[in-house]
Amino acid sequence: MKSHRKELWFETPGRRAFLNITPQVEAALQESGIREGLVLVNAMHITASVFINDDERGLHADYDAWLERLAPHEPVSAYRHNRTGEDNADAHMKRQVMGREVVVAVTEGKLDFGPWEQIFYGEFDGGRRKRALIKIIGE
Amino acid sequence: MKSHRKELWFETPGRRAFLNITPQVEAALQESGIREGLVLVNAMHITASVFINDDERGLHADYDAWLERLAPHEPVSAYRHNRTGEDNADAHMKRQVMGREVVVAVTEGKLDFGPWEQIFYGEFDGGRRKRALIKIIGE
Amino acid sequence: MKSHRKELWFETPGRRAFLNITPQVEAALQESGIREGLVLVNAMHITASVFINDDERGLHADYDAWLERLAPHEPVSAYRHNRTGEDNADAHMKRQVMGREVVVAVTEGKLDFGPWEQIFYGEFDGGRRKRALIKIIGE
Repeated sequence: MKSHRKELWFETPGRRAFLNITPQVEAALQESGIREGLVLVNAMHITASVFINDDERGLHADYDAWLERLAPHEPVSAYRHNRTGEDNADAHMKRQVMGREVVVAVTEGKLDFGPWEQIFYGEFDGGRRKRALIKIIGE
Repeated sequence: MKSHRKELWFETPGRRAFLNITPQVEAALQESGIREGLVLVNAMHITASVFINDDERGLHADYDAWLERLAPHEPVSAYRHNRTGEDNADAHMKRQVMGREVVVAVTEGKLDFGPWEQIFYGEFDGGRRKRALIKIIGE
Repeated sequence: MKSHRKELWFETPGRRAFLNITPQVEAALQESGIREGLVLVNAMHITASVFINDDERGLHADYDAWLERLAPHEPVSAYRHNRTGEDNADAHMKRQVMGREVVVAVTEGKLDFGPWEQIFYGEFDGGRRKRALIKIIGE
């Protein structure tokens, strides 16, 4: 069994953003030399997500509005977590809806994807350096 | 390390459906000959889910009503994604709540399940041929 | 490839609770002797979750209130599932938002975590004995 590990670093200027990281995951898979196995990609921070969906700008705007409806940022004082001095409780909720991680099959050296699948880093509390982890195991 | 890959194809007549695919996943595991490892089962489309829950018709009706409340199909014009000519933005939201994939332990050649766990394909934008992927790795 | 399996048992007195199970997962990893691989941790019951987030009491109170808003326990009669004699339909919804499982990378014999990641068992229908599964594969 082989394994390969790589970190991706991000610093998004605004509070929220969706970044397509599929090329970086494909590059890590090439580096690994693994032909059959599994790739785990996860946010290393608890106010961010890694998820798979469509690379379509309108959809991302819809996600942003929908997540704000399910877990609004304001009023900040509505969340007990924010009494610790944080203002990011909503980001911890949004991340649960979108998920922490994805696991993708590796087949014949490639990400084994359906026609529209793309991997995104979802930032819900940006403005500082944060990381995602890629871990690949297989042969 | 061994690996095994199989696709499942679906065409549900209506827009939304929940299909129990546990027997197909068990069959793929038998074919693989793998005794210890992990099974990944994921939707290959971004408006569908694979999830684990109870095979109870009332619960599935509850899920359907609840997901409609969290992310209504109508009005279609409420979603920017639908300006691309699609009418399925709600399906992209529902899929995030229910999840893209499950990872199940394989122990002594069987799906290592609790008493009520069953695997479902959740369709949120049906009426056409779509796929799920089974990937098994182990020994 | 090596594999290791362990069950964790819980009985929470109330209906809902969040329990930090990171030490138990770390102990299972030590027992396994695995240095590079993946850990799967999943609820074996369909009204409970395993998820990764912050070990902060205020945040957990926020999650509880938020999940009650998304999928209220009362009125019990609002759910068709509860006509089967159950009163836990809401717990099946809450579990989908928070997720069934986490997959964590193992690197140099340790859980490969970001600064605040902790693993929780989320109970949404307590008062009886229930289980989570740890399965570790690697080398």
